[in-house]
This record gives sequence, structure tokens and C-alpha cells, in this order.
Amino acid sequence: MALLERAQALEAAGHDILHLEVGEPDFPCAAPIMDAARRALDRGQTRYTPAAGLPALREAIARDYRDRLGASVSPAQVVVTPGASGALQLIMGALLNAGDEVLLCDPGYPCNRQFVTLFGGVPRPLPLRPEDGFRLTADTLEAAWTERTRVAMVASPDNPTGNRTDGAGLARLARDCRARGGTLVVDEIYQGLCYGAPADTVLRHGDEAVVINSFSKYFGMTGWRLGWLVAPQAWVPAIERLAQNWFLAPSTVAQHAAMAAFGEESLAIAEQRRQLLDRRRTLLMEALPGMGLPVVGGAEGAFYLYLDVSAHTDDSFAFCRDLLERTGVALTPGLDFGAHHHPERYLRLAYTCEESRLHEALERLRAYLERP
Amino acid sequence: MALLERAQALEAAGHDILHLEVGEPDFPCAAPIMDAARRALDRGQTRYTPAAGLPALREAIARDYRDRLGASVSPAQVVVTPGASGALQLIMGALLNAGDEVLLCDPGYPCNRQFVTLFGGVPRPLPLRPEDGFRLTADTLEAAWTERTRVAMVASPDNPTGNRTDGAGLARLARDCRARGGTLVVDEIYQGLCYGAPADTVLRHGDEAVVINSFSKYFGMTGWRLGWLVAPQAWVPAIERLAQNWFLAPSTVAQHAAMAAFGEESLAIAEQRRQLLDRRRTLLMEALPGMGLPVVGGAEGAFYLYLDVSAHTDDSFAFCRDLLERTGVALTPGLDFGAHHHPERYLRLAYTCEESRLHEALERLRAYLERP
Ligand SMILES: Cc1ncc(COP(=O)(O)O)c(C=O)c1O
Ligand SMILES: Cc1ncc(COP(=O)(O)O)c(C=O)c1O
Repeated sequence: MALLERAQALEAAGHDILHLEVGEPDFPCAAPIMDAARRALDRGQTRYTPAAGLPALREAIARDYRDRLGASVSPAQVVVTPGASGALQLIMGALLNAGDEVLLCDPGYPCNRQFVTLFGGVPRPLPLRPEDGFRLTADTLEAAWTERTRVAMVASPDNPTGNRTDGAGLARLARDCRARGGTLVVDEIYQGLCYGAPADTVLRHGDEAVVINSFSKYFGMTGWRLGWLVAPQAWVPAIERLAQNWFLAPSTVAQHAAMAAFGEESLAIAEQRRQLLDRRRTLLMEALPGMGLPVVGGAEGAFYLYLDVSAHTDDSFAFCRDLLERTGVALTPGLDFGAHHHPERYLRLAYTCEESRLHEALERLRAYLERP
Repeated sequence: MALLERAQALEAAGHDILHLEVGEPDFPCAAPIMDAARRALDRGQTRYTPAAGLPALREAIARDYRDRLGASVSPAQVVVTPGASGALQLIMGALLNAGDEVLLCDPGYPCNRQFVTLFGGVPRPLPLRPEDGFRLTADTLEAAWTERTRVAMVASPDNPTGNRTDGAGLARLARDCRARGGTLVVDEIYQGLCYGAPADTVLRHGDEAVVINSFSKYFGMTGWRLGWLVAPQAWVPAIERLAQNWFLAPSTVAQHAAMAAFGEESLAIAEQRRQLLDRRRTLLMEALPGMGLPVVGGAEGAFYLYLDVSAHTDDSFAFCRDLLERTGVALTPGLDFGAHHHPERYLRLAYTCEESRLHEALERLRAYLERP
């Protein structure tokens, strides 16, 4: 956060900053989605909707699971939320009592902790090992599970490692959690952004996991604040009541806009963008290891590379700060994502700017690393 | 809630339902606000904003306090939120530790309890007395205050009574709370909707209170999910961090749309609508007492009348249910708003439909009350 503010301050002061720290696609929101938003405005669709979202959107989401992903999901299992953020709050609120433990991947998405502590839950690390490529294994899960564990969380594809966990494997982990009396929550916010393998969902392989998703990343709708969760149908009335009390409803215009996200044209645009991201990823993965910056973690999804910077520093935060000041290249230190297995060795690069800028960043980085 | 669902089911089955239960203005969102939303779409303004909102919107809100309400508020005191709902969550999160008590007006807005319990706080009633016209007095506040009290909440104008509390009086209550080591939170979501006296804010009379507000009601932006809070500047960084973790940011398009809310044309439209609401209110207040339905509470603001129905029933919930089934008039029973001073005697009427519909509702109500 301190570095993000510094990057913005430097930019405001006229410096040319290369933003490789931003967890947000750089593409504009696709035209069919924008057009659907305009139509909603023209129809004056700006009043409160039901707390769990417009029935038509819940149906569209369920249909997309069936048609595109081959998973059977009922609209009654879908709750539309203010971003994946809202979905994370709801599911933790529905599942946790004070003192319950929640296992969180380390490294992982930093806000997860806050949704756990919000309900008096206790976040516990699932320390992912570099030698496992920072992948969650059944062993790690088993070793971390205690009598007080209620929930384990994993993202696939993952932030910050870009790891994709195979859907069948996730379904097995979900069954393990269920067998122990707990729940696996799978954050699939980067689901559509997969490289080298088709997108998948744990829901295609079983119905034990709860799934979090969002229109933010694959559909480039970050600022619209719209996501969803898929839970066992029996849990939905309780989740809906929480949503009614805390949020009243998700944004109406955003919901009408999102209805166009699953259309053919929008999906074609999303696919084009996925290919562009894949090119950027390839370009970086070819260049970085030769600069003494090996890519650790799978980099099979999302738009992140997790890099080992220990050949150049024993403090990736200081490295990021110095790099920013001297070259204008902004990156995120590993410390932002966890505390185990030496986060000070790592940093995250988000390839959310265009190729010419990535080349520029690589050049500045190379010059910086080769400075006498 | 059960009645709301029943009303919707009856309507879906083809019955003509008169919705006097809906806490949402029936006017479309004003044209300048819609146009500003369209311009934001045309400019592609759909990415994440800062967690506390666009600086320009925080400035516009602060300016409106100064220009229209004569209160001195700095943009750095303003945090833009996903509805007043988001503001309520943030302020409770910033102020409460587990076990802290929060005093809530009874009758009052039912969701407030949920924001208190979310943080392990304990909601305690401020039982408003019919003989005080359901107004919060310094005595009631003093009597309810304990060593564990951290926050007291009051809405002005109020839901469900329509009571407006004079701003100087609120500022005195806020000083009392501060002197006891606590905070008064004033929910001013219905601020612009005042009848018989100009709109006011507690912030014009002192800086001890925290204020909640929203674009939902006066500006008719319910479905956009946008509100704000005003807090002492020193508290804002902590509130901003919570907002960053829980919400990431409020809706971007909504923020650009809301920037037009304080323009001359939007304010003129809002004022016209206020006058329409005032006519509806007058019409109802002239008719209802003669039907044995006296208006209790001040009805000086918002769009609610709190009615005493005890001449006709000793169970306002059963009354509302029967009325709905037999006549299609939907009202909200007192039980939804509290537990003290015999809520079963009262019900809330929301005048959020046009005059011809109100006349129709009055006729059906009269026929129902005069039935043999
Ligand atoms: C893994 C993960 N989950 C959830 C979120 C929240 O996203 P949103 O609330 O915009 O849907 C993010 C945002 O960066 C994320 O990276
Ligand atoms: C008194 C009061 N406060 C807060 C809210 C929440 O409104 P919103 O989140 O739409 O701003 C309402 C909604 O009815 C209300 O009546």
C-alpha cells in the first residue's frame, strides 16, 4: 500500500511510472456490456433489486455454468453480490462463529484475513512451499486442520502465484474438508483467465465446495462492483438474509450490464483479451529468468507472475522501493501476500499493461540489475 | 419480510397491489444524474476508484454541506461508501469492540442491529415513548447509557416515524455522548426530505457527531448503491483501510453519476419531488385520523407515517396480513421496527406511490374498516 501511494505520487509529479503492481485488467469494459448498461439507463432500471440479485441474472449465471463449463448449478444456488468482496463477507458471515479457525493460503489474497476477523474468526496459514511450486496439497491441508477449523480457502487461478489447481483435485480437497466437518471455499475470480488449459470450475467435479466469483477480472468490470457465490441451496436463504441486512442489494445497473457478459460477443472479446494476456505472459517468462528473476509458482492463470528476487536482494520490499524510485517500475513485494517461506525473497508482477510498456519495464529492470 | 413476499406473490398472480410498504421513492432517477452516468460510460470510467471514493466527489459532497447547508466539512472527513448500508458497516467497524453496547432507537431502522452484532456489539434499545411523540430525549439517552455504551444512533428525519430532530438538539446530544466517552451517529439519509422546515444537518451545529448519508432517497438513487459518511478527520485513515479491505471501492459509474446530484438542475428536481411528497403527506394526514388511524410521531420528514391502529386491532401484524389479503393494500407492521411500547399497536405507511393510488388505497382501507 505504501508503495502504491508512492507510485501514484511520483506519477502525479510527472514521472513515467510503469504500473506492474495493479491487480486490474487494463482493457476497457467490453462494448456489449456497456451497451447493456446504457439500455438499463434508458429503461430507468435504477431501483433496488432483490437482495440475492435479479432472478434473470442468477439464471444467466447458472446457465453459463452449464453451457460453457459443463457444471450443473441451479439459479437457487447463486447469490449475486457487491463484488467477490461482498461474496467473501457473506460466506464468512454464514459459516463462522467467533473463535472458528479459517485456513488461508500463504501466500494469498491479503483481504481474506479481514473477512475472517470481521466475524471473530481466527485466520491460520496454509503455508505453501516453494518446493511444491506454492501449490496447496492434501498434506498441507491435513497438517493445518485442527478441531476448530471450519473453513479452508484456496483461489484457482491464484493471486499472487498464478497457480491453477486442477478441478478434480479441488473437489477432492472439498470432500476432505466436508469429511472433517468443514467447508472448502474456492475463489474462482480468475477462472476465465487460464493459459494452456481450458477454464474449469470445481463445481464440475462435485458439489461440496462453495465458489466465489466476480465480473471484475475476466469481464473487466472491476469498478461495477459485481460478483457472486454458489453455495448449497439449503444455505442460500440464510445468506440472502445477511445480504438483505448488510447490502440491501447489489448495484442494479451493474446487474443489467452483467447480463450481457455471457453473450457470444462478450465472450469472444474476453477470449481475445485472454490471448493478449497469454502473449504478455510468454514474453515475460522468456525474458525474466535470464535476468536472474526465475518465475516461481505455475503462472498458468490470472495475470500475475510470482518472482524469486533472492539473487539480487534479501529484502524484496526494499528492492521494490528502490526500483520504483530509480526506474519508475512499480511491483508488489511478497510481504503483501503472506509471512511464511520467506516472502522477502519474492515479488509479484501484474502484466496489466500493454506489451510496449512491458518491454520498457524489462529494459529499465535490466539496466537496474546490471548497474555497477 | 413475509408480508413483502406475500404482496409480491399476490401481484405476480395478477392482483392489483397498492404498495404502501416500500421504503423507496417511486420517482425515476433525475435526468442530469442519468446523463452524468451516460457520460461516464462514454468515457469508459469503469475501473476501481480509491477506496474512500473519487476525490472530486468527496469535494462535491463537502461543498454541498457548505453551500446548501451552511456546515463546514472538509473533503478529508468524507468517505464515499456502497450506500448508507456500507457507511453503517464502516462506522460500526471503526468504533466497536466485541461486547460494546450500542443504543438504537426503538422504533427504528431494523438493519442497524445487524451492523452492531456484526462486530460482536450488543444492541440496546432506546425505547422512544408515544407520549414523547417517539422522539429521542436527553433523558432517554441518559437513562439507557451504561459503562459499556460506545455508540448511540438516531435518524433524522426518522424511519418509521418521520420525526425530525432539531439540529442544535442533536448537537447537544452528540456532546453528551462525547462527554460520556462515546459517539452519536446521526443517520441523515432522509435529510433533504423535510416538510415545513428547511433541511438541516447536525454538522452545522457542532463537530461531535458522525453523520451517515446516501444518494438513495433524496436523489432517488437507491439501486446505484452509493452513500457516504462524515467523521472526524483523524478517524478517516482507519475507516479508509476498512473500506479498502471490505469493499475495495464504491461503484465507479455511480460516483460519476452522483457528481451531478448537487447541480442546480438536479436539486430543482429533488425539490419538486419533495413538494409532491409533501402533498401526498398532507392528503393522508387529513384523511387518516378520521378513519380511526391517528398519525403518531412527527411526520415532518422522510416518506413515512407511523399510524396507531389500536382502535381497530390489538395485533397490527395480523391486521396488515388480513388487509393485504382482502384489499391488496400493503403496509408494514410496527413489529418490524422494534419491540418496546407495544409495536403491535402501530404500522408504517410509506407514501411512495402517486396520489391517485393513495386515494384508491384510502378508499379500500375505509371500506375494510367499515366492513360489518
Ligand atoms: C483473489 C481475489 N479475490 C477477490 C478479489 C476481490 O475482487 P472484487 O471484489 O472486485 O470482485 C480480488 C481482487 O483483486 C482477488 O484478487
Ligand atoms: C434509516 C435508513 N438508513 C439507512 C438505509 C440504507 O439505505 P442505502 O444503503 O440504500 O443508502 C435505509 C434504507 O431504507 C434507511 O431507511
